[in-house]
Amino acid sequence: MRYNQQWQARAIRPDGASAWFPAEVPGNVQYDYGRMMGWGDVSVADNVEKFRATEGYTWEYRAVLNYAAQSEEQAVLVFEGVDYRFDVLIDGRTKLEYEGMFSRVEIDLAENAGSELIVRIHPHPKRESAEFEDRQQADQCVKPPVCYEWDWHPRMLVSGIWQDAYVETRTADWIRRCEPFYTLNDDRTHADIRFEVDCDAPVEIELFDPDGQKIGTGERFSIENPRLWWCNGQGEPELYTWVARTEHHTASGHIGLRTVRLVMNEGGWIEPIAFPKGRSVAPIQLELNGRRVFAKGSNWVNPDIYNGRIDAQRYETLITLARDAHMNIFRCWGGSGINKRAFYDLCDRMGIMVWVEFPLACNNYVGTPHYLRILEQEGTAILRDLRSHPAVVMYCGGNELFNNWSLMTDQSLALRLLNKLCYELDRDRPFIMTSPIFGMGHGGYTFYDPYADADVFTLFQNSHCTAYTEFGVPGVTDLDNLKKIIPEDELFPIRNMGSWRLHHAFGAWGAERWLCMDVLTRYAQEPLDTIEKVVAEAEWLQCEGYKAIFEEARRQAPYCSMAINWCYCEPWITAAGNSLITYPVQTKPAYYAVQASLRPVLASARIPRFDWNAGECFHAELWLLNDAPEKAETTVRVSVKLAGVEYPLLTWETGSVGENENRIGPTINWVLPDVDATEFTLCLSAGDASSEYRLCYRRSENSAVSRQMNV
Amino acid sequence: MRYNQQWQARAIRPDGASAWFPAEVPGNVQYDYGRMMGWGDVSVADNVEKFRATEGYTWEYRAVLNYAAQSEEQAVLVFEGVDYRFDVLIDGRTKLEYEGMFSRVEIDLAENAGSELIVRIHPHPKRESAEFEDRQQADQCVKPPVCYEWDWHPRMLVSGIWQDAYVETRTADWIRRCEPFYTLNDDRTHADIRFEVDCDAPVEIELFDPDGQKIGTGERFSIENPRLWWCNGQGEPELYTWVARTEHHTASGHIGLRTVRLVMNEGGWIEPIAFPKGRSVAPIQLELNGRRVFAKGSNWVNPDIYNGRIDAQRYETLITLARDAHMNIFRCWGGSGINKRAFYDLCDRMGIMVWVEFPLACNNYVGTPHYLRILEQEGTAILRDLRSHPAVVMYCGGNELFNNWSLMTDQSLALRLLNKLCYELDRDRPFIMTSPIFGMGHGGYTFYDPYADADVFTLFQNSHCTAYTEFGVPGVTDLDNLKKIIPEDELFPIRNMGSWRLHHAFGAWGAERWLCMDVLTRYAQEPLDTIEKVVAEAEWLQCEGYKAIFEEARRQAPYCSMAINWCYCEPWITAAGNSLITYPVQTKPAYYAVQASLRPVLASARIPRFDWNAGECFHAELWLLNDAPEKAETTVRVSVKLAGVEYPLLTWETGSVGENENRIGPTINWVLPDVDATEFTLCLSAGDASSEYRLCYRRSENSAVSRQMNV
Repeated sequence: MRYNQQWQARAIRPDGASAWFPAEVPGNVQYDYGRMMGWGDVSVADNVEKFRATEGYTWEYRAVLNYAAQSEEQAVLVFEGVDYRFDVLIDGRTKLEYEGMFSRVEIDLAENAGSELIVRIHPHPKRESAEFEDRQQADQCVKPPVCYEWDWHPRMLVSGIWQDAYVETRTADWIRRCEPFYTLNDDRTHADIRFEVDCDAPVEIELFDPDGQKIGTGERFSIENPRLWWCNGQGEPELYTWVARTEHHTASGHIGLRTVRLVMNEGGWIEPIAFPKGRSVAPIQLELNGRRVFAKGSNWVNPDIYNGRIDAQRYETLITLARDAHMNIFRCWGGSGINKRAFYDLCDRMGIMVWVEFPLACNNYVGTPHYLRILEQEGTAILRDLRSHPAVVMYCGGNELFNNWSLMTDQSLALRLLNKLCYELDRDRPFIMTSPIFGMGHGGYTFYDPYADADVFTLFQNSHCTAYTEFGVPGVTDLDNLKKIIPEDELFPIRNMGSWRLHHAFGAWGAERWLCMDVLTRYAQEPLDTIEKVVAEAEWLQCEGYKAIFEEARRQAPYCSMAINWCYCEPWITAAGNSLITYPVQTKPAYYAVQASLRPVLASARIPRFDWNAGECFHAELWLLNDAPEKAETTVRVSVKLAGVEYPLLTWETGSVGENENRIGPTINWVLPDVDATEFTLCLSAGDASSEYRLCYRRSENSAVSRQMNV
Repeated sequence: MRYNQQWQARAIRPDGASAWFPAEVPGNVQYDYGRMMGWGDVSVADNVEKFRATEGYTWEYRAVLNYAAQSEEQAVLVFEGVDYRFDVLIDGRTKLEYEGMFSRVEIDLAENAGSELIVRIHPHPKRESAEFEDRQQADQCVKPPVCYEWDWHPRMLVSGIWQDAYVETRTADWIRRCEPFYTLNDDRTHADIRFEVDCDAPVEIELFDPDGQKIGTGERFSIENPRLWWCNGQGEPELYTWVARTEHHTASGHIGLRTVRLVMNEGGWIEPIAFPKGRSVAPIQLELNGRRVFAKGSNWVNPDIYNGRIDAQRYETLITLARDAHMNIFRCWGGSGINKRAFYDLCDRMGIMVWVEFPLACNNYVGTPHYLRILEQEGTAILRDLRSHPAVVMYCGGNELFNNWSLMTDQSLALRLLNKLCYELDRDRPFIMTSPIFGMGHGGYTFYDPYADADVFTLFQNSHCTAYTEFGVPGVTDLDNLKKIIPEDELFPIRNMGSWRLHHAFGAWGAERWLCMDVLTRYAQEPLDTIEKVVAEAEWLQCEGYKAIFEEARRQAPYCSMAINWCYCEPWITAAGNSLITYPVQTKPAYYAVQASLRPVLASARIPRFDWNAGECFHAELWLLNDAPEKAETTVRVSVKLAGVEYPLLTWETGSVGENENRIGPTINWVLPDVDATEFTLCLSAGDASSEYRLCYRRSENSAVSRQMNV
């Protein structure tokens, strides 16, 4: 039996302790403190900056232990996760000193009902020799670095009892552990399931099929023609359930039967050819149940500054949106760390594959003995928690560690340790040391790349990657949200300062990002002299930019095996940024654009660039994309809409296109007439597979001038 | 006390057992059998083919156990290595069944003096489903695959008691293990040494400095300003010695104090630049004692078909030649496996760094449970044996595993296991999964590359690798050796058949390799109508080709950090091949060319290509190369010798060039006069740093014709 506790908290400040205030568990103590102080919504204006003063505080949670154990029961104090370094005291005596937020910790109680429990949270780890007050400070701890400030996340050092905490009374026949393992034979027509059980009494385990029909009772099961777990779009995410029982205790869980591997991308073995010859690319093609699956999805980041306040409902809303957008994978970006357990359960149920990244990002995590010890402890806890989830298809050491802003390498002990832990605890799941690995690409993150002098249409058509595991096109949040987070007197004209800047519209990464007024102006045909025009222009570019990249990545299959944009959600309301969803769960127009581009069967056009001039020969290659496990066939009627006139161009009968296969069609060539317009639309009319591309049009007499003005 | 045994062996053939014949231990039973059968020198003609019939045989060694143990002593039967799967029987009773040739195995004896000992060697492992009768057959065992046939190694499946075997009588105070470990502080001014000891009695350990001066007695030592172990050319390979004693037993060993890391190659972090952005290259710059060292050396392969017959004397001759050629590293190629222990001791003493490769090469070692179990056992044994050697600077999973002739990847369980073992047992030594890794290059292996239409001068100047860890230019063995291995009636004219073919002159890798008559003819100015002319032409190309590559790799430092040619030695006399040394220990002319190119301070010319026409502007960039830890300065007088005339071109004062630094000088430009010659020599006269390049010259009127004839 579980007993939740009534929690209060207080801050131990340099000037002494604050009063006790009510505290949410699970939650973050900074939220409770801000509420007590009346600091208001952190998303609004510069409220978040008020929390900078709290960084050095020690925090204490207090509860009077409330439980009732029978004489034969053992009462156990359970913390499913405390962020980050903490002590546990009962009646003033230290029971535990601990570092690490992903471990479950348990303390046996002895007649402690009514005792005072204190959880003391030490100040956030900050490497003292760090050069900057940013993520570097977190490079010797296993606390995800995002809260130390990122280009889309304000600095906001959260901590506290972020996962469930309770007293559990346990009978002598308590099932301490019951974990299923299975093997599938080569053609997956036979599954053997066994359970590892830790209990002092006999345990009866019942197994049920995905329809709830009981299969049997025992510790080992054999299933003929098992129903396999499939990701979204490839089949059903079938889950078997098990229930383990002793006389006084019941535990339960689910099993998804599937195999997963990273296999060489098609065409990968051909390279390299010339002497001196290097290695072939690192494989990143997911093979699920023997089928090569194109991974399409998004980078999941912490969906709230207050990671402790996220609940299953929020996860469910967000994951449902991903499923409805035909996504089949989240890359859970390492900078944000590991999610609460409900996240993985929901992904299991909804067929969203999860790429789990250990909490390392954009730092050089030097393998000191202390760091390696904590990483081993936390890595072990993470692996033991996650390995039973069918949705988890791979592990990754962390984000962008092999680049010059991180300076880690294949030799880094931390990554060699993680490879070792994954091998020992879950060897059949793929492991990569970081992203990008050899062959993959990250970026770009803007609609137009000044170094390549190319928009994302051109840039990605000229790229040759095994996987695009980060790429972004910034948009803005809608006007209602802007009005909420930007004080009225700052809203327009937009300036690189104050709340616009704090909410990442400027100075987040170079001066112009993420609003990118330079890029918006480049393509705007009239002055962006109202906030509404800015929002509309940014939304247009984000929609068309994301469509261009996602569809190009799909066209590059099978060599390319993944398209995972940066990013899915956001932890507070950003004024401008790459996410598809505004905090907390509000879809941007780009969400629907991506949803359209990810339909399994899709008529798609490879358009060389976004902006076209009157008199030019507009051209585009036609494709039918099919990443579904069924054949597809359609008729594509192609037309251009320009200045209110629809010009039919051609009709293409695709013929039958195989499962998980693309087909190239004809290239359209059409000289753009000179009319009074600023945009035109390419329409591929093909029933459910229809696509539209809204492109930039410039009148010929204006084009030279307007380009000159905008460059 | 050790008691060697008198060994006999016999073959269990399909038609019954052979008679017992004398057997060498350590050795290979095939050698003993061939001697008994009178099959002659395996290097000669097609003698080696006689052994094909023995592949399916089971072999038995026999000895009457000879030792005398005192009552308080334990007698132990020790095998330091038995190749490959074997049983040990005493008086007919099976005492051990084992698989793996790199493990030491021990069997406690009990009053067995006079007992009959049988070591039964099972037939060589051959994966039954292998497609070809070649190395593939060895992809599920930890037996080095080279003996299954390679392009420079005849098929010759050897096995037997290849390392020492003896009975050892051990007192109760026997020192079962005494292993030193040390740490150096950051600036290497302080060393802490500790010993791990396994003994039932107190052990006294004495430590001596490299001059033999006693430092002290104990289990822990602190040394201020320790004398560091350096590789050849960078300092002295200083070795401390230790002696551990109990009343009845003494053990001893040496310690080389040094730090070693693989750090990012200079310039490596700059790449990649453009979006979508991949990872930076994998670091392969060796840093020894905080100093970046250019690794120059050669690929070490088994120096004898009969790996069991190699002794310390042979190792010493070969390693001394490497040291005298200014080499500082051997890449011990995985296909040949691990050497006998004396090899590593000698490398410690001579300052030759050793890149240790686990016995995997050019195969897909699928991670089946059995394979992983044997690999873990053998990998553990190898690491425990080698980790105390200062010369061992890195581990590598195996050869060319990430290429399409192997099909292994970063996901392969065998390589993840090796990473884990290295991390657990020797984490401070670098580990790479294979060679080449990202950034490195292997090949080419011929003087002229038809696909690139370039000779090695051009090819390597157009390459940009962090390390060239295999490259080769074939030569021939000398006439005396050719007459020895090729029967007189086959010697000339040279044909693609018989002994020429068996000794790898043809058909070893494509039709033309390794004699490469097509390439020899390409550059020959007169018909190669005698064996002497063929030998001379091949020697010329091998010398100039190797010089061109080694010096170009050195010029590409510091981005390039390694130049390691394929290969150093050979296991029998090849008619043609890339080695610098003919079996057993005979230097080729190319050895001396390489020796010249590896002098620490060297005047060097970057010559765009090997062959030049009269009337062309010959041009070459001058460099002073310095990979020594001291400054260098010289005067370089440049001249060309052509048709007996020396043309002085310029004098370059290099000025002072820093330690481990290169300096570019002027480029010479000189129009080649039209004279009667077939070659010319570029001379850089600079005292000890002088260089000469003997280049191909074509008269202008002939050049078009001769090219046409030869292409």
